[in-house]
Amino acid sequence: MASPSKYKTVGIISRPRPSSLADIAPQVVGWLKEHGVATVYDEETAHALGRDDTGHSRNEVAQHADVLLVLGGDGTILAASREAAPRGIPILPINLGGLGFLTSFTLEDLYPALEDVLAGRESISERVLLAVEQVHEGERLAPLRVLNEAVVHKSTLARMIELELHIDGGFVCRYRSDGLIVATPTGSTAYSLSAAGPIVHPAVEAILITPICPHTLSDRPVVVPDTSEIELRFSEHSDPIVLTLDGQIGVQLQKGDHVRITRAAERQKLIHPPNKTYFEILRNKLKWGEA
Amino acid sequence: MASPSKYKTVGIISRPRPSSLADIAPQVVGWLKEHGVATVYDEETAHALGRDDTGHSRNEVAQHADVLLVLGGDGTILAASREAAPRGIPILPINLGGLGFLTSFTLEDLYPALEDVLAGRESISERVLLAVEQVHEGERLAPLRVLNEAVVHKSTLARMIELELHIDGGFVCRYRSDGLIVATPTGSTAYSLSAAGPIVHPAVEAILITPICPHTLSDRPVVVPDTSEIELRFSEHSDPIVLTLDGQIGVQLQKGDHVRITRAAERQKLIHPPNKTYFEILRNKLKWGEA
Amino acid sequence: MASPSKYKTVGIISRPRPSSLADIAPQVVGWLKEHGVATVYDEETAHALGRDDTGHSRNEVAQHADVLLVLGGDGTILAASREAAPRGIPILPINLGGLGFLTSFTLEDLYPALEDVLAGRESISERVLLAVEQVHEGERLAPLRVLNEAVVHKSTLARMIELELHIDGGFVCRYRSDGLIVATPTGSTAYSLSAAGPIVHPAVEAILITPICPHTLSDRPVVVPDTSEIELRFSEHSDPIVLTLDGQIGVQLQKGDHVRITRAAERQKLIHPPNKTYFEILRNKLKWGEA
Amino acid sequence: MASPSKYKTVGIISRPRPSSLADIAPQVVGWLKEHGVATVYDEETAHALGRDDTGHSRNEVAQHADVLLVLGGDGTILAASREAAPRGIPILPINLGGLGFLTSFTLEDLYPALEDVLAGRESISERVLLAVEQVHEGERLAPLRVLNEAVVHKSTLARMIELELHIDGGFVCRYRSDGLIVATPTGSTAYSLSAAGPIVHPAVEAILITPICPHTLSDRPVVVPDTSEIELRFSEHSDPIVLTLDGQIGVQLQKGDHVRITRAAERQKLIHPPNKTYFEILRNKLKWGEA
Repeated sequence: MASPSKYKTVGIISRPRPSSLADIAPQVVGWLKEHGVATVYDEETAHALGRDDTGHSRNEVAQHADVLLVLGGDGTILAASREAAPRGIPILPINLGGLGFLTSFTLEDLYPALEDVLAGRESISERVLLAVEQVHEGERLAPLRVLNEAVVHKSTLARMIELELHIDGGFVCRYRSDGLIVATPTGSTAYSLSAAGPIVHPAVEAILITPICPHTLSDRPVVVPDTSEIELRFSEHSDPIVLTLDGQIGVQLQKGDHVRITRAAERQKLIHPPNKTYFEILRNKLKWGEA
Repeated sequence: MASPSKYKTVGIISRPRPSSLADIAPQVVGWLKEHGVATVYDEETAHALGRDDTGHSRNEVAQHADVLLVLGGDGTILAASREAAPRGIPILPINLGGLGFLTSFTLEDLYPALEDVLAGRESISERVLLAVEQVHEGERLAPLRVLNEAVVHKSTLARMIELELHIDGGFVCRYRSDGLIVATPTGSTAYSLSAAGPIVHPAVEAILITPICPHTLSDRPVVVPDTSEIELRFSEHSDPIVLTLDGQIGVQLQKGDHVRITRAAERQKLIHPPNKTYFEILRNKLKWGEA
Repeated sequence: MASPSKYKTVGIISRPRPSSLADIAPQVVGWLKEHGVATVYDEETAHALGRDDTGHSRNEVAQHADVLLVLGGDGTILAASREAAPRGIPILPINLGGLGFLTSFTLEDLYPALEDVLAGRESISERVLLAVEQVHEGERLAPLRVLNEAVVHKSTLARMIELELHIDGGFVCRYRSDGLIVATPTGSTAYSLSAAGPIVHPAVEAILITPICPHTLSDRPVVVPDTSEIELRFSEHSDPIVLTLDGQIGVQLQKGDHVRITRAAERQKLIHPPNKTYFEILRNKLKWGEA
Repeated sequence: MASPSKYKTVGIISRPRPSSLADIAPQVVGWLKEHGVATVYDEETAHALGRDDTGHSRNEVAQHADVLLVLGGDGTILAASREAAPRGIPILPINLGGLGFLTSFTLEDLYPALEDVLAGRESISERVLLAVEQVHEGERLAPLRVLNEAVVHKSTLARMIELELHIDGGFVCRYRSDGLIVATPTGSTAYSLSAAGPIVHPAVEAILITPICPHTLSDRPVVVPDTSEIELRFSEHSDPIVLTLDGQIGVQLQKGDHVRITRAAERQKLIHPPNKTYFEILRNKLKWGEA
C-alpha cells in the first residue's frame, strides 16, 4: 500500500535493553513496511530485530528520516532530540515502562498514533530548545542544544560554586550554591522541579533559572523571557565546575570559562496524543488530588 | 513657564498620614505650578497642604489627570492603579518610607523625575493587569482589575478550601489548601513570593498560580500563558471563601459562585528610573548576595 | 463472660454521620456486652444505635470511661483527646473513611484490637500535648490542651500579622506572616506539613514552630526542646488575630493579649497496631517512593 | 603569674592564611605566657609566629592541650573538632572574618574570653556528634565523627542516587535524589538549611535527615530521636556515591557498601559568649526581621 504521507521514512530510536523491545521492534517494522513506509533504525533497534545488520548511529538515523519514532522513556527522547531538532524533524514518543512527562503515548497507542501520523492528522507541540555555549578563552565553542536544561554544578568533593548571573549584559545576582539550573518550560517538570522550581507550561515563552541548595535563603527560582541572553560567570576562587546538558552530556569547565545560554533557533516538534492535555499528564505523574 | 508637555494636569495621590507629607506636598504643588502644570489631588494630599479645600476622591483625581504622581508605598500604587489603569494614564511612584518593589523612585529623585516626565523623557514599563470576575448565579459581576494578584482564601475559622482549577475550559487539578493566589508577574514578588512562588520578570507573558499551604505535598506553583482563561470552582462542601483583590478589596463568595480570571485589556503604565533595572530593585529588597 | 480487664467501661465517641456507623455501632456495643464490659456513648453513637436514649455529652462519656473507643477520623480523635487527656485515659482509634495519621486501625482491625485491649496486650504511644494559654490583661485564662497544634492567624481580610516570638523569656525573632503554627511532633504531619514544616518523630522531645507565608524569606521552621516556654506577643499595630486550637476551637484575641505555650503535664495515650510502625503510616499517607 | 586554671596548656589551631593572623598569633602567645599558661600550636600558627619551629600537626596539638583556641571560621572548628572531641577537650572559637554559626566570639572578645576560660568562668555548650561508619563487605570501618553532618551524594556526572533509609532496623523509605544529609542540631544551620531543612536547637536530642533535590515531591526533612540507629543502603543500580563528612572528608563508596550513623559517645564542648543566645546568632546570620 502506497503512503501519500509527507513522512516517507520513519527513523526508529530505542532505549537500550527494555525486555519488551524484542517483541515490539519486528512488529512495528513489519507494520511500517506494509504501509509503504521506509525505515531506518539505530543499533539498539537492530539488536532487537535480531537481524544481521547492525543498524545505524542515531545521527545517521536522523539524517535519513522524516520523523523519529522513539521507543523508550524521557531520557531516550532527550538523546533523540539532539539529532532531530537541528534537522527540524518531529519525534513520535512511545513510552516503554513508567510514565514520563514527554512520552505521553503508551504502547497500546502505538499503531493508532502511527496511523494518525501517516494520515497527517498528528498533533504537534513545538518545544523551545536552549542553545548552550561554553566560552573558553574568549571563544565560543559550538553550541549544544538542550530540550530540558543546562546545569552548572559543583564537582564531587567541592563545597559549593560561586557564580554571577548576567542577563542581557546586566548583572542580576551572585549565587553560592550546589549549582544552578537553566531550564526550558519543558524542563520545568524535570530536575528543576526537584530543586523547588515552578511548573511552567510549554506555551509560556520563558526560561527558568533555579538555584540548587542556595546558601542565601532568599534566593528563589526566577522566570525570564526566552529572548534573554543568559550568561553564567564563575568566581576565580570557585571550586571546579561541571556543565551538564539534559542530564546526559557532561563538560568539565576550565578556570576562566563562562557559559552563555539563549533560545535556540530551532524548536523540537513533539507529537502528542490529540486528546490528552498537558495538565492531564502532570496530574498523573504528580499524583495531584489523590491525597 | 509654559509646559509643552503632553501631561497638562498632574493628579496627586498620597498615602494616608506619612509625617513627611506636610513638607513635600506644598513644595511639589508649588513646583508644578511654576512649571505651568495644573494639579488635582486627593483628600490626603489636601489635608497635608493645609488648605481650605478638601481635595477630590481618587476617582475624580484620575478623571482629570494625565499622569498620577503617587506619594507613598506599594499599597498606595495598587489603589491608585485601580483608578489609573482603566483610563490608560501612567503612574509616577515616589516612595515615602521603606523600599518597595513598585516604588522605585526615592524622595530625592522626585524633581529630576518630574522634569523627565514633563520633558517626555520618562521610561515606562507596561504592566499586565488581571480582570477578575465573580460569577454569581451564572451572571458575571463587573470585573475588577488587579495589578498584583487575586486570592481566594478560607475565612477565619475554616480549616481549608476545596477548589477546582480550570484553564481554557479544561480541568487542571483540585486543591485542598488555605487558598490560591493568581498573580501577574508584577505580583510575583508580593504575596505569592511568601507562599513559595517563583519570581517572574514583568516581561514574561504569563500568569502565576500559587497554592497557599496545599494539603497535597506535590502541588507546586504553576506558570501559564497570560492568554489563559482561568476559572476557580468551589466544592459544594467547602467552607466559606473570601476573594481578595490586591490585598485591599475583600468579597465574601456565596455558595455556587465561581471566579473567572483573564488578562485585562488595559495595562498599567508605570514610570521607572531610567537606569535602575528590575533586578537591581530585587537585589536590594531581597538582600541577595549579602549572606 | 466476666472481664478481668483494667478497662471496665468503654466510652464510645463517633464522628458525626458516617453512613457506616448504623451498622458498626450496634455490633460493637453488643460485642462489648458479651465480653462483660460496660459501655457509655456520645450522642452520635446513640443516634446510630437507634435507641430511645440520647447518649451523653463527650465530657460525660470520658468521665465514666476507662478507655475511649473513637470511631471516625483524625478530627474526631483531636476532639476526643480534649476529654481523654486530662483524665489520663487512652484512646483506641478506629478509622472510618480515608486513612489518617492518627487513626491507624482500620475497621477490620476493630475486634482484634478490642480483644488485645481487654486482654491488656495493647501497644500504647504516649503523645505530648501542649498547654495553650491566652494571656488577657495580664491574667492567664484556663489553659487548653492541643494534640496537634496551636495556630495564630490573621483574620479574614487582614493582610498579615506581626508578632514576636520569645522562648524562655528571651527574644527570638519578629514575624510578619499570615500566621504561626506551634505544633507537637504529632502535629508535625498535620497543618505544619502544609506550611513546609519538617516531619518530627513523636519520640523527639521537641516543639515545632512553623511560620505561614512569612514575608522574610529566610524565616524557617524552628524545632526547640519541649521544655521551652513559648510566648507570642503581638504588635500594637497588628491586624486582628485569631488563635485556633487543633483546627477546631477558635478564639478572637484582643489588643494586648498574648499567648503562652508549654508542654502539658498530661500526655495522650494512643493505642496503635502492634506491628505497624510510625513510618509505615507516613509512607502510605505521603505516597513516598511511588513516583 | 601562676595560673590555678584546670587548663594548663592551650593548643592553638588557625585557619590557613588569614592576613590578620601575623598580628594576632604573637600577641596571644605572649599573653598566654604572661598568664603562666603553656602553648602548643599547629603549622599555620607557627608560620604566623615567624619562628624557627614549624609547629605541630593538629593531632599533636590536641594531644598536648587542655583546651583548643581556634582562630578562624566554622570550617576550622569542624576540623579542630575531629581532634578535640575524642579527647573531650573544649574549643574556644574566635572568629576571623565573616560571622559564623559556630564562631560566636569576635576578635575583640579574645582576651576577655581567655580570661574567663583561665578563671573557670567559661560557658560551655555540649554539642552532639555523629559517629559515621562505612560498612564494607560486612565490616565496619573505623567510625568518623562529625559535628555538622554526613552527606551521601551522587558523584559528578551521575543523575541521581537511589537509597533506602532504615531506622533501628526498620525500613523507612526509598529516596531517589541528588543526595541525603544526616545532620546534628548543630549542622541544621549548615548544609541542611540550604536544602530546606528546619533549624533545630542544639538542646533538642534529635538527628535531622534532609533529602537533596528529591524526585518524590512529598519527601520532606525528617527529625528523629538521636538514639536512632540510621542506616543508608544503596540500590545495586545506583550511580557511584560519595560520602562527605562535615564538608571536608570525602570517601568514594564501593558497590555494596552501606553507611551506619549513630550518636557518638563523646560530645564536643564548645565555649560560647555568656550573654549571647543561640537565637541572637541566628538572627544576625539569617537577617531575620530586617526585610
